[in-house]
Amino acid sequence: MQQAIQLALDNVPTGRGGPFGALVVCKGQLIATGVNLVTETSDPTAHAEIVAIRAACQKLSAFQLTDCELYASCEPCPMCLGAIYWARPTKFYYACNRQAATAAGFDDAFIYDEMSFAPTNRRIPGYCIPSELAARPFEAWAKAGNKIPY
Amino acid sequence: MQQAIQLALDNVPTGRGGPFGALVVCKGQLIATGVNLVTETSDPTAHAEIVAIRAACQKLSAFQLTDCELYASCEPCPMCLGAIYWARPTKFYYACNRQAATAAGFDDAFIYDEMSFAPTNRRIPGYCIPSELAARPFEAWAKAGNKIPY
Repeated sequence: MQQAIQLALDNVPTGRGGPFGALVVCKGQLIATGVNLVTETSDPTAHAEIVAIRAACQKLSAFQLTDCELYASCEPCPMCLGAIYWARPTKFYYACNRQAATAAGFDDAFIYDEMSFAPTNRRIPGYCIPSELAARPFEAWAKAGNKIPY
Repeated sequence: MQQAIQLALDNVPTGRGGPFGALVVCKGQLIATGVNLVTETSDPTAHAEIVAIRAACQKLSAFQLTDCELYASCEPCPMCLGAIYWARPTKFYYACNRQAATAAGFDDAFIYDEMSFAPTNRRIPGYCIPSELAARPFEAWAKAGNKIPY
């Protein structure tokens, strides 16, 4: 955890992105690290956890982090928590919580609050546009013989 | 929306990833498209919406999708909804909902349900490890003169 915090601290003077760091460990071995690169890379998804997860998956040539654990300097935001669920490490650890991120000027707690609202009631609203074609991709997926579930 | 659905449908026989498509529009102009590339790229974060958001931001050389809208063949999962909040388009549209994704074998609704639990009570639990060093990255960020808020 101290290494994740140090990554976060060291990222500030670089101007690459926010004060966040993360790393992925598998069976006691460090697999990959990540820092926030949002502003340097013009990528709003380049949070430390996402950068670390992507790097770890590349290193393992896998889209799953089986038997891995993630350490983050701050509680993962909903985007990063979602990424954790798709990558499926066994657990994760964090130092600061979402309230500390909010106090530092970040939207983490706000986005957690928004998650529970119906899509149309959110600050960035989402609207369902029904379509007769909507189900076709899932129908094709159900019938596909070459698919790799994830 | 028909184009987003067609992207999803066309992605199935390619074996690149799941049956999902998305695109970003700015003031009536198509900026970028995305399809699910999870299995092809070994990247669990390569959902259609994230791929489209990243591509749109690269095209605009910006980490914000100001005045943009996102169209997705299916309701964004929590990871992608989080990415939408960080990219800040004005709104988004979708065809299928999370229940349809669940029926097709995907974890979207499950992950939405998990979001509302305390970290330690989730299926992938998160544990806070307090540290005397934890606040230092945010303290450095508060004092940093060169920072770019996002």
